[in-house]
Amino acid sequence: MPTPHRPRRGLLISFEGGDGAGKTTQISLLQQYLVSERTVDEDLVLVTREPGGTPLGERIRELVLHGDHVEDKAEALLYAADRAHHIASVVRPHLARGGLVLTDRYLDSSIAYQGAGRDLDGDEIAALSLWAVGGIIPDRTILLDLPPEALAERREAGTLDRLEQEGQEFHGQVREKFLELAAAEPERFEVINATLPREEIHRRVLDAIAEDLSRFDPTFEPAPPPSRRDEE
Amino acid sequence: MPTPHRPRRGLLISFEGGDGAGKTTQISLLQQYLVSERTVDEDLVLVTREPGGTPLGERIRELVLHGDHVEDKAEALLYAADRAHHIASVVRPHLARGGLVLTDRYLDSSIAYQGAGRDLDGDEIAALSLWAVGGIIPDRTILLDLPPEALAERREAGTLDRLEQEGQEFHGQVREKFLELAAAEPERFEVINATLPREEIHRRVLDAIAEDLSRFDPTFEPAPPPSRRDEE
Repeated sequence: MPTPHRPRRGLLISFEGGDGAGKTTQISLLQQYLVSERTVDEDLVLVTREPGGTPLGERIRELVLHGDHVEDKAEALLYAADRAHHIASVVRPHLARGGLVLTDRYLDSSIAYQGAGRDLDGDEIAALSLWAVGGIIPDRTILLDLPPEALAERREAGTLDRLEQEGQEFHGQVREKFLELAAAEPERFEVINATLPREEIHRRVLDAIAEDLSRFDPTFEPAPPPSRRDEE
Repeated sequence: MPTPHRPRRGLLISFEGGDGAGKTTQISLLQQYLVSERTVDEDLVLVTREPGGTPLGERIRELVLHGDHVEDKAEALLYAADRAHHIASVVRPHLARGGLVLTDRYLDSSIAYQGAGRDLDGDEIAALSLWAVGGIIPDRTILLDLPPEALAERREAGTLDRLEQEGQEFHGQVREKFLELAAAEPERFEVINATLPREEIHRRVLDAIAEDLSRFDPTFEPAPPPSRRDEE
């Protein structure tokens, strides 16, 4: 099993938390800040997500979230497959070029979701995820913590996928798992109350990553021609 | 990690070997023999395969065999996901009822294919597969061994999927891996030369499983009504 380690180049920041905690909004605010305020080259900032950060991942995401019943271990393995493909084909090459990756969910989500309420061993899920990513853990993980009562209010707005339908109790367990993970690695995690105003959350995110950004090396190697992507 | 063990009830026989070795034919001959000659109840014999023994598995099979490039670890994890779902939703319930399962590929295929030529550690793949199946190994594994020169002849006939396109050298490595696995567990494996006439192979398969069949308990519990399947 690979030893957990931060990326050797680039910067990997993951956003974790339950659905509706505002991860997408905060990632977007951070991306804008980096490009506009810190004048980081747009190509240098890769925004991605799990599951689904690749075409294969989108199909896996579809299988897990909107398909028929999936057995617990199969679900954990599908998420790990998505992650393995995502890290190898998208995240790792961007980091190797010296880029900055903001990911909406990473391995902590697997431990929290598959480990909570699904009769699976959290340590086994963690080992599976670490194997999938070759040991790469984030430089910094922002946990947007949403208390269950706040979640219920927010959920009334949108459509719910299968995971979201599994109810309040499950989400309570997931939240506890996230908080346990954060408590176990305080140097990596920053826990922010997701019920705060979004500008206040954004400010705290910037505080949390200030040190990472200060040592971030902006020397960015352009992608090799064959895999060069169009502006997005 | 679960301890490897044979099923506590029922009988699990896996057929392994490269594509074109005649696994499908031999499984079909064995099924016919069991039902016609040994008067085993038709419902008692479940013929299945990996990847693809379930609707979810069919979609995973599609992703792996006919989709875009899939990173090595992601491929291994997708096969493991297929296996986890297959064993939990199809194989294990049938064995628990006292049934007989004939499967076209099982965990040895993953070790041989993902371990060979793909920079993945065979022990890690084995551990992954064992975790996926909760430790259940076959009562008997028939390895249909096809020498590379014979394979080349047979492949000229049909259409080739992605794995099959990866060429002769890879298939040679896979074959070696299969033979290593068989040598490591001679009490479980029966290696049969796949270039023999099919009736001779069939006879050897029957010899290999004679003891398993003699201690096979034909007491079969009908499936519970909600999950009872139609005749297939």
